[in-house]
Amino acid sequence: MTEKKNIAIMGAGLVGSLLSLYLAKRGHKVDLYERRPDLRKNVVDGGRSINLALSDRGWRALKSIGIEEEMRKVAVPMHGRMMHDEQGNLTFQPYGKEGQSIYSVSRSGLNAALMNISEPNPNITYHFSRQATDVDLRTNEIRLRNLETGNNETIQPDLLFGADGAYSVVRGAMQKTERYNYEQSYLEYGYKELSIPPTADGSWAIEKNALHIWPRGNYMMIALPNIDGSFTCTLFFPYEGERSFTTIKSEEGLMNFFNEVFPDAVPLMPDLAKEYFTNPVGSLVTIKCFPWSYQGKSLLIGDACHAVVPFYGQGMNAGFEDITVLDQMLDSFDGDDWQELFEAFEKQRKPNADAIAELAVLNFIEMRDKVADPRFLLRKKIESKISEQYPDRWITLYSMVTFSDLPYSYALETGRQQDEIMKKVMKHIKGIEDYNKPQVQKLLEKQLVKKEKLKKYAAAEV
Amino acid sequence: MTEKKNIAIMGAGLVGSLLSLYLAKRGHKVDLYERRPDLRKNVVDGGRSINLALSDRGWRALKSIGIEEEMRKVAVPMHGRMMHDEQGNLTFQPYGKEGQSIYSVSRSGLNAALMNISEPNPNITYHFSRQATDVDLRTNEIRLRNLETGNNETIQPDLLFGADGAYSVVRGAMQKTERYNYEQSYLEYGYKELSIPPTADGSWAIEKNALHIWPRGNYMMIALPNIDGSFTCTLFFPYEGERSFTTIKSEEGLMNFFNEVFPDAVPLMPDLAKEYFTNPVGSLVTIKCFPWSYQGKSLLIGDACHAVVPFYGQGMNAGFEDITVLDQMLDSFDGDDWQELFEAFEKQRKPNADAIAELAVLNFIEMRDKVADPRFLLRKKIESKISEQYPDRWITLYSMVTFSDLPYSYALETGRQQDEIMKKVMKHIKGIEDYNKPQVQKLLEKQLVKKEKLKKYAAAEV
Repeated sequence: MTEKKNIAIMGAGLVGSLLSLYLAKRGHKVDLYERRPDLRKNVVDGGRSINLALSDRGWRALKSIGIEEEMRKVAVPMHGRMMHDEQGNLTFQPYGKEGQSIYSVSRSGLNAALMNISEPNPNITYHFSRQATDVDLRTNEIRLRNLETGNNETIQPDLLFGADGAYSVVRGAMQKTERYNYEQSYLEYGYKELSIPPTADGSWAIEKNALHIWPRGNYMMIALPNIDGSFTCTLFFPYEGERSFTTIKSEEGLMNFFNEVFPDAVPLMPDLAKEYFTNPVGSLVTIKCFPWSYQGKSLLIGDACHAVVPFYGQGMNAGFEDITVLDQMLDSFDGDDWQELFEAFEKQRKPNADAIAELAVLNFIEMRDKVADPRFLLRKKIESKISEQYPDRWITLYSMVTFSDLPYSYALETGRQQDEIMKKVMKHIKGIEDYNKPQVQKLLEKQLVKKEKLKKYAAAEV
Repeated sequence: MTEKKNIAIMGAGLVGSLLSLYLAKRGHKVDLYERRPDLRKNVVDGGRSINLALSDRGWRALKSIGIEEEMRKVAVPMHGRMMHDEQGNLTFQPYGKEGQSIYSVSRSGLNAALMNISEPNPNITYHFSRQATDVDLRTNEIRLRNLETGNNETIQPDLLFGADGAYSVVRGAMQKTERYNYEQSYLEYGYKELSIPPTADGSWAIEKNALHIWPRGNYMMIALPNIDGSFTCTLFFPYEGERSFTTIKSEEGLMNFFNEVFPDAVPLMPDLAKEYFTNPVGSLVTIKCFPWSYQGKSLLIGDACHAVVPFYGQGMNAGFEDITVLDQMLDSFDGDDWQELFEAFEKQRKPNADAIAELAVLNFIEMRDKVADPRFLLRKKIESKISEQYPDRWITLYSMVTFSDLPYSYALETGRQQDEIMKKVMKHIKGIEDYNKPQVQKLLEKQLVKKEKLKKYAAAEV
């Protein structure tokens, strides 16, 4: 029988708030400490990514705790990518099979919902405007400054969870321990949030149920639908270079640039210039570290130990999956050796965190560049056909990541094998009709027979 | 005409001291600030790696400044690896062609020599026992504490060079700048220094002109000769596990272990137990970061920006090569745009620093494990034969790294290509005599014809 613990969670973001529910349901007493004020009472930060793509891994964690249905109501399904070329022509590419979608949700809306659900729980207490100024990992003594009153306090929980994001203070303390492995790497791209407001009659100005992409080679803009009829657009753009945040500095320059490369979007963005010159440029970091825990007293979770770039829409989903995996381990945890538990957790999750980090960077190249290539789109169509013909032997990489709970590391490896096969297949393909050519069918038969391992995993698809 | 600058170098180790000579010869005024006291007046730190393998890249940098001959006198040439198996049987594997050697030198001896040569230079001033406590990269104001007097002083050089090693304070300041890329990764192995003293008649107890290796799968001991007849031994050993620094804790356990796995070494190591229980366990870190410079005011060099594990014997050599490359760039530098210069330098050196970091980790596996494998040694012999037959198309990876100034990144890439070729070749090889089999010769002919790029670089060998 596991003893009930006093647990502190640093960070009351998406992962921290959801984690509190999972821990409280097991009878632990949970205190959450959040640096920011209560977002339910305050205007949300400008410039932070304000909507996210929720997919199967995320839904799974919400479902277990019984809040899936509530969130479905405020989520906008996106069935595929809608590509906009420089002439404003549209191409649609479905994400998965009929009925499979990812969902655009508001970060603050989801966070507020998680808070509203967890706060009434007698085992859960939220503390806002608390900044951790010092963390002693050996004793679990944490000094906190109340940013409203200026007072300091010290807490000493039995267990400490660091759910405090990419710039985690808890990880900062771990970084000072002996032989700590740590990596932070930035893309040479930043992002800027812009918007497309609803039309005069309050509806969506472009296709509602899609993730819109304006792929332009080494940069791109995307747009995700919001429930209120607006879209949140994000421009991913180099910091430096001929066309970059450094060179686009005047309103005239901005409008010339947008009119040239995103002409169909300009009429939909009345506040473009104001937003461009007001909103900050966000940076795109990948964080890797190891270990994630310290002596069975503290554990990092979510972005704090594996922040990824946003291009696979998996940052939040990976954090939520951390919670699912931890919860499964807690199901069979019957004792008090939290060190063993935390070490088993970090060992299982680390390769998957590394894999999604890599996949996310690769998907940036796909989104900004390859999706504008007819040959690439043809390949995607051929892959769909293979997937239809061999449903137990071929799940596309995107589907493995987005619509399954196969380990990310397995998805990455299998994706590489599929890449090799597709290189061979595409040599015989000029158009979609070539899929039925005998040599293509024979090649696939031969290649897929060898993929028994794939078959096993494919059968496990959720 | 480049203006003469006031230059501060943080760190008066091997790279800092040598760099001062190169900068002073161009008329700049150089001040070196070293945290430790003058090593010429003090006992050397116990436990730090006290001899190093100097190879071609290092010699080149010493030669340009006219101190090669002096150092040759105190360096012990090592012509190859001498492997010791568990029965004490010896196998010798030459490093390169006849006459090619790496050289065992004393770290402190080389450092002292560099100080003695540079200190009389009127443009060079050494300041010992100075710890940098604060570095402001925007202004180049550096706060220093004099560790002898306790006084503080502030300096503000025109240019700042961070030659302050793996735990660089200058890099620490860069790590706090926006979007800084940084990685520190530790091996799960530590090292402990031990020794083999000279024999009663003052000579070397084992073969003098070799680097000795006791390869034992997942750990190993090595020994490098010193000029005084002794050897410095280093045990590379896991921190944890069945046989590790954690489990070997008693003198009895230590002696049992050594008698079992290093039986021929034990009689040569009278101080084994004392040294084992007195000397600290060193850690093995790889540091990667980017950029290496800040606004043309400061530049990292050597371990400060690319610390590597010691298994290729290239840490110092890579640092010295940094100086060679910088000096070449300064030859054609005729202006005052140090930012452009520093950016060109870091851009050229970064891929090579990454490559030697990777090669160093790979060589650990080779040294501790593969060199005990007869099949591996046979492959090395076959490679030597290829290299003899096709001197303009095949330089072994070890030779590219150690006996040439080919870029490390080129060596790594070419080594991978050679690996692929050797996999094919070795399928036909049971013994050295099989090298002359027609199918082997035909295969080589075919493979090497394709390697025109190799040929080009091979021709450039120094």
